Amino acid sequence: LINRISGILVVIVILFFSIFDIQAQKLSDEKLKYYNQIADEIISSSLNERKGYELLRELCEIGPRLSGSENSLKAISWAENKMKDAGFDSVWLQPVMVPHWERGDVEKAVIIESKYFTGKELNIAALGGSIATPPNGITAEVIEIRSFEELKEQSENVKGKIVFFSQPFDQSFVNTFSGYSNAVKKRSEGAIEASKHGAVGVIVRSITTKFDNQPHVGGMRYSDTIPKIPSVAAGYLDSDFLSEAIKKEPGLKINLKLNCQTFPDAQSYNVIADLKGTEKPDEIVIVSGHLDSWDLGCGAHDDGGGCIQAFEVLDLLKRLDIKTKRTIRCIFYINEENGVRGGIEYAKYAENSSEIHLAAIESDRGVFTPRGFTVDADSSIIEKMQPWLPVLNKAQINHIIKGYGGVDIYYLRDNVKAKIGYEPDAQRYFDLHHSANDVFEEVHPREMQLGTAAITLLTLLLSEEGL
Amino acid sequence: LINRISGILVVIVILFFSIFDIQAQKLSDEKLKYYNQIADEIISSSLNERKGYELLRELCEIGPRLSGSENSLKAISWAENKMKDAGFDSVWLQPVMVPHWERGDVEKAVIIESKYFTGKELNIAALGGSIATPPNGITAEVIEIRSFEELKEQSENVKGKIVFFSQPFDQSFVNTFSGYSNAVKKRSEGAIEASKHGAVGVIVRSITTKFDNQPHVGGMRYSDTIPKIPSVAAGYLDSDFLSEAIKKEPGLKINLKLNCQTFPDAQSYNVIADLKGTEKPDEIVIVSGHLDSWDLGCGAHDDGGGCIQAFEVLDLLKRLDIKTKRTIRCIFYINEENGVRGGIEYAKYAENSSEIHLAAIESDRGVFTPRGFTVDADSSIIEKMQPWLPVLNKAQINHIIKGYGGVDIYYLRDNVKAKIGYEPDAQRYFDLHHSANDVFEEVHPREMQLGTAAITLLTLLLSEEGL
Repeated sequence: LINRISGILVVIVILFFSIFDIQAQKLSDEKLKYYNQIADEIISSSLNERKGYELLRELCEIGPRLSGSENSLKAISWAENKMKDAGFDSVWLQPVMVPHWERGDVEKAVIIESKYFTGKELNIAALGGSIATPPNGITAEVIEIRSFEELKEQSENVKGKIVFFSQPFDQSFVNTFSGYSNAVKKRSEGAIEASKHGAVGVIVRSITTKFDNQPHVGGMRYSDTIPKIPSVAAGYLDSDFLSEAIKKEPGLKINLKLNCQTFPDAQSYNVIADLKGTEKPDEIVIVSGHLDSWDLGCGAHDDGGGCIQAFEVLDLLKRLDIKTKRTIRCIFYINEENGVRGGIEYAKYAENSSEIHLAAIESDRGVFTPRGFTVDADSSIIEKMQPWLPVLNKAQINHIIKGYGGVDIYYLRDNVKAKIGYEPDAQRYFDLHHSANDVFEEVHPREMQLGTAAITLLTLLLSEEGL
Repeated sequence: LINRISGILVVIVILFFSIFDIQAQKLSDEKLKYYNQIADEIISSSLNERKGYELLRELCEIGPRLSGSENSLKAISWAENKMKDAGFDSVWLQPVMVPHWERGDVEKAVIIESKYFTGKELNIAALGGSIATPPNGITAEVIEIRSFEELKEQSENVKGKIVFFSQPFDQSFVNTFSGYSNAVKKRSEGAIEASKHGAVGVIVRSITTKFDNQPHVGGMRYSDTIPKIPSVAAGYLDSDFLSEAIKKEPGLKINLKLNCQTFPDAQSYNVIADLKGTEKPDEIVIVSGHLDSWDLGCGAHDDGGGCIQAFEVLDLLKRLDIKTKRTIRCIFYINEENGVRGGIEYAKYAENSSEIHLAAIESDRGVFTPRGFTVDADSSIIEKMQPWLPVLNKAQINHIIKGYGGVDIYYLRDNVKAKIGYEPDAQRYFDLHHSANDVFEEVHPREMQLGTAAITLLTLLLSEEGL
């Protein structure tokens, strides 16, 4: 009996220590009180002053900011000035060469020689990086294909034709990013896959949750060993139309004209500013977004909003006079959309720097109402962040879970302990993503400002608590 | 030693049982699997088919649905037909007399006899229930007052004047309903309080999170013992303007004209339908919203959307052939906005019925993306619902917490075990609440449909698991 009891006692002791261990991870009452009070100040200032929202309005007035464009340089200069005006430390521009592609002024897809639809013009836009057509365009039959599997099956019928990838975004996913991941390959790899089978052009149904007629563009790739063919996105409604038209009249022909052009790489810059830490100034917490955008709309959500949130993290800390142990670094990366040159360049810098990069946060999923953070890090690191949830919950952060960090911070790899993505509500993002719908008017001030407060709180906790 | 060990063993046994107790409340693996699978089906059907969203479009085409209006009767008839078409059980109209107030066609507030602003017309709308002015209006000085405390202090200066309650909605609250509660008294009680001090009219700054110029109306009260004075809401921007104008020119005069009118109470109806339970048909789970709306906009979020969500709970269960143990009852209440007569009438019915009302859910805070449920019930009941969270989380429900149920279900009092309010994200609701902004175009299909899925899941869990 005594032996059994001793055994049970050992179990109790272990239980005790494991409970003790769990409690040790919690924030002390004193700290919790401090952070909760600071959270109220940050949230209140962010929601009342709407400073970031007004800055985003200014940024959007510059217009779209595709890498290599004049606008992108204007935006870089604007950002540098705003950081200096705000009194941030060590504002600098990190040089980096970026791709330079321009849409041109001719984008036309017209149905021709048709019994029913001659002259019907489809609402299309060239995918980023597409080659142009000859001046008179290419004229070819359109074949509707739903998947890469079907493309293979239809291999013999594709030659000389324009492939129309028609499958819509799957609406079933609560997380629209899952729907997007499933659909995006046809946009990014469609030209390569179709060309393998002899196609002369590609039309992709826009990847969107909104059933309007705006083309949603985005990056696409070519292979050096496979003929390059022009590639466009069509509006959702015109994609429906085209699908019906082909059913009624198989062998339907389209004349497709594009005069987009790729120029030599252009000089560009990441924009960087610090708030120096008081105790560990050489340890860095990054908050970031990307300043470049696609050339339709003005990149209000993608990712002007994310940049401005990063900016306002520093601004909030500064205007509320909150000192941080570690240095908080704001980075506006350039060229996320078609090359990630900015992210790669900064990662090189980080690798060779004597600074210690603790963590990097990126906001690049729209500036909608907060839901959580997704963390690319060891489970033990993510575990360590859980006790912060009661504080973050004040700004509507419900979870910190394993997941993707962000495209621009991805290349920091093991040089940071955690790459963290801000996760706003995802229901509306793909309504506007990469389209003319992505304008300032689609940003809600309270949603954006609450997100800013959430990111500020996480930044503060990372700086003060470490990982 | 043995005694101590025995003591410790008792503690272990207690710990053991309490752990066992906690686990007993959890859903079994088998049940969890069942509910998770059904959750996927419900969410997928709701997001893909957008049936409720399209029904809401139809409802909104009828126009605003203020109690007693012709439109409200059209909407009642439309709803009854839709419930019958959907094949619900025992569709019926519960008669109830409702207030009948009409805005009329004259609403004008003009600055007169001013050095700077003569002729400037303010964007105003009569508050629901306001009396009219004489045909030539009332002309009086305007005095700006921020709070009821200031009203008392300024008592001597208020006599014969129009009181302008100018204090804006406090934007600091993450939960905008807290901001609203703080502000709403000036709208609902302002006429009584101002009249006590001899005021002849009231202008209230619109209670809104959007800084546009739409008047946001809503209910207001009179007292039988205090003179009734006309009462209007002014647009946010014109409230700013008026505030500045009074600063520049104290003693500024306004001529205010209204020809709104209160008619005798009108015949109206709650619209009710069931999905009969298979095992306990006499036990009821209510899902509900209110069909009446204010007369600006078309009550898309408030509360056409909530009604249609309740409708689609039954429709989803039916179209996916999910049988429930208990009866699921959909109620479209009438007259939430200015009388709650529908809610009170149904509560009387419930009190005298042999049916057992288990729980009532109301969706009446807009049809935005889901966040949680707030429950007006004993803590032990709310505790019992916690194990359902992993299932509800699939539709983005993050919490089930103590809180308000809903205006229409409030009067069920102790006749239900739980009165439950659907809690969507609240950042955008007061942009449109009670104003011309509350139109179908402001409803996002995925947000609404995800909310519908969440409410359907909770309804199912209530029916199958009980409370």
